[in-house]
Amino acid sequence: MENTYKQIVGGILAPVGFKAAGVYCGIKQDSTRGDLSMIICEKDAVAAGVFTTNAVKAHCVLLNQETIKNETARAIVVNAGNANACNGPQGMADAKTMCHLTAQALGTTSDGVFCASTGVIGHALPIDKVASGIEGAAAALHGGSCSDVTRAIMTTDTRPKEIAVEIMLNDKAVRIGGIAKGAGMIEPNMATMLGFLTTDVVIGKSLLQMMLKRVVAKSFNAITVDGDTSTNDMVLVLASGMAGNAPLVEDSAEAHAFEAALAHVCTYLAKEIARDGEGATKLVEIVVRGSVDPMKVAKTIANSPLVKTAIFGNDPNWGRILAAAGRSGVAFDPTLATVTLAGETVFANGQPTAFDPAALSATMKGLTELAVRVDLGAGGEEEASVWTCDFSYDYVKINADYHT
Amino acid sequence: MENTYKQIVGGILAPVGFKAAGVYCGIKQDSTRGDLSMIICEKDAVAAGVFTTNAVKAHCVLLNQETIKNETARAIVVNAGNANACNGPQGMADAKTMCHLTAQALGTTSDGVFCASTGVIGHALPIDKVASGIEGAAAALHGGSCSDVTRAIMTTDTRPKEIAVEIMLNDKAVRIGGIAKGAGMIEPNMATMLGFLTTDVVIGKSLLQMMLKRVVAKSFNAITVDGDTSTNDMVLVLASGMAGNAPLVEDSAEAHAFEAALAHVCTYLAKEIARDGEGATKLVEIVVRGSVDPMKVAKTIANSPLVKTAIFGNDPNWGRILAAAGRSGVAFDPTLATVTLAGETVFANGQPTAFDPAALSATMKGLTELAVRVDLGAGGEEEASVWTCDFSYDYVKINADYHT
Repeated sequence: MENTYKQIVGGILAPVGFKAAGVYCGIKQDSTRGDLSMIICEKDAVAAGVFTTNAVKAHCVLLNQETIKNETARAIVVNAGNANACNGPQGMADAKTMCHLTAQALGTTSDGVFCASTGVIGHALPIDKVASGIEGAAAALHGGSCSDVTRAIMTTDTRPKEIAVEIMLNDKAVRIGGIAKGAGMIEPNMATMLGFLTTDVVIGKSLLQMMLKRVVAKSFNAITVDGDTSTNDMVLVLASGMAGNAPLVEDSAEAHAFEAALAHVCTYLAKEIARDGEGATKLVEIVVRGSVDPMKVAKTIANSPLVKTAIFGNDPNWGRILAAAGRSGVAFDPTLATVTLAGETVFANGQPTAFDPAALSATMKGLTELAVRVDLGAGGEEEASVWTCDFSYDYVKINADYHT
Repeated sequence: MENTYKQIVGGILAPVGFKAAGVYCGIKQDSTRGDLSMIICEKDAVAAGVFTTNAVKAHCVLLNQETIKNETARAIVVNAGNANACNGPQGMADAKTMCHLTAQALGTTSDGVFCASTGVIGHALPIDKVASGIEGAAAALHGGSCSDVTRAIMTTDTRPKEIAVEIMLNDKAVRIGGIAKGAGMIEPNMATMLGFLTTDVVIGKSLLQMMLKRVVAKSFNAITVDGDTSTNDMVLVLASGMAGNAPLVEDSAEAHAFEAALAHVCTYLAKEIARDGEGATKLVEIVVRGSVDPMKVAKTIANSPLVKTAIFGNDPNWGRILAAAGRSGVAFDPTLATVTLAGETVFANGQPTAFDPAALSATMKGLTELAVRVDLGAGGEEEASVWTCDFSYDYVKINADYHT
């Protein structure tokens, strides 16, 4: 699938109509990556977004859930190093100030500005530093490479995550760009997953929102590092409408083609987040079929510490995989189930196959991407994929050594 | 609560009418702890049991689920070192052979014998060794101390777990004894939790089963080391009826007194399992109230790797606790929630209190039992307690270094 799209450079600046900048304003101690970034659209962009389902929501999420009700938006302002979550009334006031100052710097209004924060929670946002960062970023807005932005939204990510693709809708070229951060928790109190997408497609708001929701369910919502959901998670998309295509119509061939490309971008970024999971040595793909709820089974397997530590140890431990499926709450008959590890069937007909554990362990050791396939044998065509990573000493180290 | 019951010696041999023995028959490589044990009642005992909810069930569980339908039972035979799970038709045949040989050695019938296995899954049971162990154990049956049995059911447990209490029902002394194993997974492919209880109370089968189910829900089912449920988990109770009390009647004062004592025994053993969790440095009690489903919230917090690694690091990280509650699926208003760690309120009124993180961390460092209390502020008197342990380097080491 990765090769069926034309990859282009520029990330979120590849689509027509966008500028961005990432600067350092002193929120983080480390100045090398930047900590304040801004993404703007030259025109009123059609906007869609999905937000954390955690009952505890950061102030930026609560504010954006109001802003998203407007038809269009102009900008996204992001700070790293402070989550501005659980900060009481001052936290909401600070989120509003972030949007207000950004609107002022751009000569627009606050109701067209989204804000996002990632970092430590329960600490007051240093709003003076944020203000100087907003001023700096507004002055530095540029086209071309977005690597400064990709880096300025990172916390403990070990590498930046960006992609851009171009597709043809009839005779018009349409671009989709995306950046994401996630899976780092050493500095913040918990992981925050942020994804920002841009496109120049001509599309209506409700169709874009519907597509985003569907695509996120099978990409960003299908990754898990440890089952914990942040207070700050969000994915936003801005559509400039400058590609010149005929406006997308629901269920048309063009709409399907665009949604598939959007899914490609989101899946790429989601897998990059799982691959960069704290302490991870392997990207693990869990594919489940033959069940009434394959996604539920896949997520239970993907979140099992026993499965994840076994994979870290290159142990072809089908018993842990099958037992995790067994406790997922989805009924099945184990004698009809099959488990395949790295392409080798290790369990079928209610018992282990005659595979060679030592040889399979050696194979696993050489892999940086491991596929786990489970067919629970209850029929059905539906297949669910979840991406996760293994569970290493470093996961514990990263999350235990941090002090509030 | 621990002090309100008269503790007595003897574990499962404290109640009148029981004998037991634990021997070594070569299933495990290490002979020091034994690997085959037998618990018998001199009379037909009233029996009750609860079994794993995992869809993948070991052969002993499937067989016991039939045996438990009989009114009485005479014996429990247990092997450690091999789970006899996922072994196809041969696995079920071997489980039946275990019961048959035990019945033969005792001069009774198979339908009065329960079997239990714990250890590695997917490996054929060495039935010849098991047969010699059954012969040896039957010849060694004794009263007095049950420490040989407590040790012979262990796998990677670091210490044996047993208790016995005596209560007065009117003028009759009634005894309850219990042993348990659990939380070790280095040798087996997954943890198995086994609990065996004896009592000499006079009680009917349906009342005993009802009580056991209620008690297990708040004790053995309220502990979690990593959220994984084994294929082999079971708790069995045998009642010899030799205490001479008037038969217990549902909802009587005596029935309530007996159930409370049974709960005490099960809670003690459950907490011992959590305390002995793989790599654990702390027993952690999570108490949740002010919610429509406090147990669901408590379990989500207790299973959060982020919460558990923070506690290992002595980090008073209320953000991770609150965020875990937030993703439990139970709605609440964070501004009404309070979080208390080791007796100190760290979050209230939608923001952190002015607690001293360094001082609280130092307090946590000195504790081997840590209490986490969460009130979600939605009212209600119901309170749920869950016991777990912290998540250390050693958990990963134990579970990654094992090879199938």
